[in-house]
Amino acid sequence: MISKDLHIYNSLTNSKEKFIPIKDDNVGMYVCGPTVYNDVHLGNCRTFVSFDIIFRYLKFLGYRVRYVRNLTDVGHLEESGEDKVSKKAKIEQIEPMEVAQKYTNHFKETIKKFNVLDPNIEPIASGHITEQITIINDLLSKQLAYESNGSVYFDIDNYNNLSKYNYGILSGRDLENIKSNSRKLDKQSDKKNEYDFALWKKAGKNHLMKWDSPWSIGFPGWHLECTAMSNKYLGDQFDIHGGGIDLKFPHHECEIAQAVGYTGLQPAKFWIHTNMLTLNNKKMSKSLGNNILPNELFSGKNDFFSKAYKPNIVRFFFLQAHYRSELDISEEAIEAAEKGFNKLINLIDNFKIINTADEDNDVLYNQIKDWELKCFDCLNDDFNTPKLIAEIFNCSKFINEIELNNQNVGIREKEYFLKLIDSFLSQILGLRYNKIELSDKSVLKILLNIREKARKDRNYDLSDQIRDDLSKIGISLNDKD
Amino acid sequence: MISKDLHIYNSLTNSKEKFIPIKDDNVGMYVCGPTVYNDVHLGNCRTFVSFDIIFRYLKFLGYRVRYVRNLTDVGHLEESGEDKVSKKAKIEQIEPMEVAQKYTNHFKETIKKFNVLDPNIEPIASGHITEQITIINDLLSKQLAYESNGSVYFDIDNYNNLSKYNYGILSGRDLENIKSNSRKLDKQSDKKNEYDFALWKKAGKNHLMKWDSPWSIGFPGWHLECTAMSNKYLGDQFDIHGGGIDLKFPHHECEIAQAVGYTGLQPAKFWIHTNMLTLNNKKMSKSLGNNILPNELFSGKNDFFSKAYKPNIVRFFFLQAHYRSELDISEEAIEAAEKGFNKLINLIDNFKIINTADEDNDVLYNQIKDWELKCFDCLNDDFNTPKLIAEIFNCSKFINEIELNNQNVGIREKEYFLKLIDSFLSQILGLRYNKIELSDKSVLKILLNIREKARKDRNYDLSDQIRDDLSKIGISLNDKD
Repeated sequence: MISKDLHIYNSLTNSKEKFIPIKDDNVGMYVCGPTVYNDVHLGNCRTFVSFDIIFRYLKFLGYRVRYVRNLTDVGHLEESGEDKVSKKAKIEQIEPMEVAQKYTNHFKETIKKFNVLDPNIEPIASGHITEQITIINDLLSKQLAYESNGSVYFDIDNYNNLSKYNYGILSGRDLENIKSNSRKLDKQSDKKNEYDFALWKKAGKNHLMKWDSPWSIGFPGWHLECTAMSNKYLGDQFDIHGGGIDLKFPHHECEIAQAVGYTGLQPAKFWIHTNMLTLNNKKMSKSLGNNILPNELFSGKNDFFSKAYKPNIVRFFFLQAHYRSELDISEEAIEAAEKGFNKLINLIDNFKIINTADEDNDVLYNQIKDWELKCFDCLNDDFNTPKLIAEIFNCSKFINEIELNNQNVGIREKEYFLKLIDSFLSQILGLRYNKIELSDKSVLKILLNIREKARKDRNYDLSDQIRDDLSKIGISLNDKD
Repeated sequence: MISKDLHIYNSLTNSKEKFIPIKDDNVGMYVCGPTVYNDVHLGNCRTFVSFDIIFRYLKFLGYRVRYVRNLTDVGHLEESGEDKVSKKAKIEQIEPMEVAQKYTNHFKETIKKFNVLDPNIEPIASGHITEQITIINDLLSKQLAYESNGSVYFDIDNYNNLSKYNYGILSGRDLENIKSNSRKLDKQSDKKNEYDFALWKKAGKNHLMKWDSPWSIGFPGWHLECTAMSNKYLGDQFDIHGGGIDLKFPHHECEIAQAVGYTGLQPAKFWIHTNMLTLNNKKMSKSLGNNILPNELFSGKNDFFSKAYKPNIVRFFFLQAHYRSELDISEEAIEAAEKGFNKLINLIDNFKIINTADEDNDVLYNQIKDWELKCFDCLNDDFNTPKLIAEIFNCSKFINEIELNNQNVGIREKEYFLKLIDSFLSQILGLRYNKIELSDKSVLKILLNIREKARKDRNYDLSDQIRDDLSKIGISLNDKD
């Protein structure tokens, strides 16, 4: 059994710390999910793949994980033209929830292609208005928030005076610095200070998503939903809070201030931030024309790549960089990943069809066990997938030795190795590596039987033809006799 | 172009009425969705397939449909034992939303197998607490509801005195009758009258789903969610409200009372109710041991059927009964449906491979056009799918005549017929009828090329072998030369 010797880099302390759950073997993890008003960004997919590894590995280690990833649907869709709205029947107007539903479905389909596991709870921001109002009421009662013209703002000066934590604790920013960098308030602002942030905003007439509240018909500030939902489903303090590095400030900083104000406690023990994905060494940006959608990458219909790449390959490519490192996607890099992955699968396929001997091979068995430990060391070192993948490739050393030295392979070590490969590649890294299911009912099985017969009949024209045709569609056959 | 001459049976008036949307070509449709605290019931699946036909046909007719189907997650999960709850950390307790998420995912996967289209909005009951509180406040202000010990009830006597509609309008029940059938209130009841129903319930200590409200920490009554969500997404009045017939009373009756009280208007113009599914002529019931889950039917692992049935066949089976008729599922009945469906597909496949002549066949073309009109008549008559399917089978008459009388078939009529078949079977009935996609890259394509070559080489042993092997896995080849 693997020991639970996991160390995680904690953004809150800027150091690697041993991971011990707050409550026995239960782990609570909250990750900021996507905004569902447009197509999911490829960089977001990398983030969710990174947390999928964390989720999978924690479960692999035997933890009982409650993974919560929200969907942000409280957007800012507005109907233009006041008269137009009032004259239109409800059914003719844009319905934000219809837009949100469309992109939620799209997001779930896309992320499924990446073989990302479903979180345990996927709460929706607009579905937690009551909970957000409860928190605002509490913060108002503690003087940590103030109402102004129907809106409510978090009072950062008061928070810093009253709380034992300072605003800026996560991002390492100093309030004096934030203050001096803040723009001056214009005269129309409702806020006391520019750096205060909204907990509730009074809605304008054309604003389409709005709810009743004690202060106005309006909508919650963006930061509040994550505090409300993480607290509701994971409690006042939980183990891991994650998100893309772009959310560290101000979003996560504000979350901490809200939660500390509400409960008196730091909400999460570990903060995990994933790094950015760039395209051809430039920031991905629609307005700069340097952007590619996941489905464009899978279909090959895009301006950046000469061919299509399967989600499984893109996932493997993502995992070849550590989640805390910036990663650049380019044709050269992803093609290298594809070649590497195929090489690895061929290596494993070759091992799969090795004939086993009656005798065990203790030397090989011990080599595999040493290799296993090294692999887990990589994972335990802050989920270091690039190191793990390099280590997995190292199995070629002892596999190649087998053929070279004409070694025996016993059933024991064959099965042990293949089980480990399945743990690392499939269970933990979430990669699909079994090319084709050879069920008795498959067309491929029929074809292979015909080829088998052709070979026995020495009809090599036919058997070679079948091998070549299959090779063209990516199925390679190795004849061992 | 088909004329929009649709007639729908309206449960509110107990008569078939011509369907004309309230607002131009926009259609708003609300259907009561599943409760997500257990596996979806096969009878529910029949209901959602029925409304899928309605959704598909309305869209086929060119209407712009906003279809809202809710998910009921405000359940009554309780943690047993007061002490246990208070001692447990949040992460150790049952989280109702985790249960709801699991069964929501399960429901969506199951319903997808039936090829049911996604509604435009799938709102969640627990996500609309604010909206429900707003309605309760309004009803309280109009004396249509009263507070009692932290709970709020709808006041049916006051409603009948103040509103222009009577409680009982949909189910045809008389209030005097309801009164005389009501149990006497026990002394502990908060209600004025037994027939009043809850809008808000104060939560007991062990109740796990609860929210702040002006009256108590509690949860909304079951009927209120549908009023809140249909009103929010479709407006005060919309075109169609649907659900299983078991929801007609009291659920839909209460919905009407709430909506009329809130807006003064009948919420839906048409009420559509689908009938029950029985198993071997008995009510489906888990406690009676007379129950089968969709996945048990698809896998064949159950006590009622000797083999597995594909979701597509079950869908076809459902559609062979009208949605307003009770339907009994039995081995005999579903096997007959499977045979019938396969016969139909063979008929169509045979027509597909007919060689076309240079000349058109006006007689056949007109036969097809007559047949088309009859098919649409079935659909326009309250979505009568059994009549439509019988009419589709009638195409065998003119198809068989072609061979019998050695008729020409022109490209015009061939394409016209196949397009209609696609409209009826695929677009409107949502059936999958194309057996296999023959992409250039498929293994099947390789196999068929080999067979083609074998036949040219007069190697009939091989070609027959391939035909027989494919036939065993359900792929039948017709050699026409």
